[in-house]
Amino acid sequence: MTLAYRGTHYHGWQWQYANELYKGPPPPPGHGIPTVQEKLIRAFTYVLGHPVQVVGSSRTDAGVHAKGQVAHFDTFREHIPPEGIRRSVNHQLPDDILIRAIEPAADDFDAILHTRSKRYQYAIWNAEDRPLFNADLYWHRWQTLDIAAMRQAAALLVGTHDFTSFAKAGHGRQSPVRNIHSLDICQRGPKIVIGVEGNGFLWRMIRIIVGTLVEVGLGRYGPDRVQQMLKATHRPDAGPTAPPQGLYLQWINY
Amino acid sequence: MTLAYRGTHYHGWQWQYANELYKGPPPPPGHGIPTVQEKLIRAFTYVLGHPVQVVGSSRTDAGVHAKGQVAHFDTFREHIPPEGIRRSVNHQLPDDILIRAIEPAADDFDAILHTRSKRYQYAIWNAEDRPLFNADLYWHRWQTLDIAAMRQAAALLVGTHDFTSFAKAGHGRQSPVRNIHSLDICQRGPKIVIGVEGNGFLWRMIRIIVGTLVEVGLGRYGPDRVQQMLKATHRPDAGPTAPPQGLYLQWINY
Repeated sequence: MTLAYRGTHYHGWQWQYANELYKGPPPPPGHGIPTVQEKLIRAFTYVLGHPVQVVGSSRTDAGVHAKGQVAHFDTFREHIPPEGIRRSVNHQLPDDILIRAIEPAADDFDAILHTRSKRYQYAIWNAEDRPLFNADLYWHRWQTLDIAAMRQAAALLVGTHDFTSFAKAGHGRQSPVRNIHSLDICQRGPKIVIGVEGNGFLWRMIRIIVGTLVEVGLGRYGPDRVQQMLKATHRPDAGPTAPPQGLYLQWINY
Repeated sequence: MTLAYRGTHYHGWQWQYANELYKGPPPPPGHGIPTVQEKLIRAFTYVLGHPVQVVGSSRTDAGVHAKGQVAHFDTFREHIPPEGIRRSVNHQLPDDILIRAIEPAADDFDAILHTRSKRYQYAIWNAEDRPLFNADLYWHRWQTLDIAAMRQAAALLVGTHDFTSFAKAGHGRQSPVRNIHSLDICQRGPKIVIGVEGNGFLWRMIRIIVGTLVEVGLGRYGPDRVQQMLKATHRPDAGPTAPPQGLYLQWINY
């Protein structure tokens, strides 16, 4: 399934009780902090009438949004058309989570393992006045940003690199090497959208890249500095982490 | 001053303790239900250092937004430039209220009495899927709407009429006669925006007009029916009241 959500009111994707290591029964609704995965598991379990595990490709952080998250689930209710499941589950879900499509997959399909590439967007509101009606959908930076310098720095990040400097410590991945396929910056009126496409990303990687590019845009250091940052493989050498509310998981390619 | 706000988290404009009939001291912050006027009075009083009364032209209902509300206040701090007051007060205000401009007015200026005309917008999200990222900024109607029929009905409401059928009982105004200068309906993708301009409006009038136009769009009755509704001067003869989250006070003309 492909789904979208507004992350504002959720503590991210991951539900602690959906972890394989948790052996007990699911806790009653309202127990613990709300997550997107919890809402989905409860809605699918209600509609299909059997326990359902929902496995999402990206474990988005608290406050991060998704336009095209991909997840899989198993069911033996093969007689219900996917569109019927989609409508029923959407009816059970809160207003800020929406399943866009459900389609049958191969028996061995795995939303996490079979990911080939992903694209994220980061939205900045670059105007003196704050984004009144969309405060939870943008990062507000009122200062003038040098977009040309940001694009120069962005170009230096494209390609295969060790992104240790651009990842939160404890990301838990074996290799810190990732391939960024493209990194584009678009400006339209007060909106600046940074799009990042790659084969995978480390923990907080997009937000640290955006935080660093904004520092370049403010003139705090030159675009070439990102090369030194990559070489250093030391998190404090890169820029700050941008806040979560501007980040969107746009699509996942299989 | 001209100001904008997202009404989602407020019980409308009016603060009960800002009523002239209330003689006591202002209650401590956090007392009672939050309103836009309360936030403004507290921010202005803090910045200017003397009690400030903020008088708004439109008493918008709970959940209703404003792009161009107009309000006035008195101060003897004439040496502070209006732009300085604006920035300081914006800094004190919550994220969902923003003062766009402050300018000196004539001593006898009154934001309520001197209103010449107003424009409201009503935004409908007309698509099967709900407006995920903007659930509190649209009225979601997934059904196909006959825009041509809605425009026909809208044209019949333009002009000077007794709008008793289109007002919530107890509107408290001496005359139920109002002049609608224009009523236009624009459609772009899933968005339908109904704009209403007039010399003034009765309580809930825009939302009842929108609710009625949508019934026409659904084919529940023909466009000509609105003429009978106007003649009836009886609230139950008109359509239902549209919900508040689609309504925006766009501008006020003096």
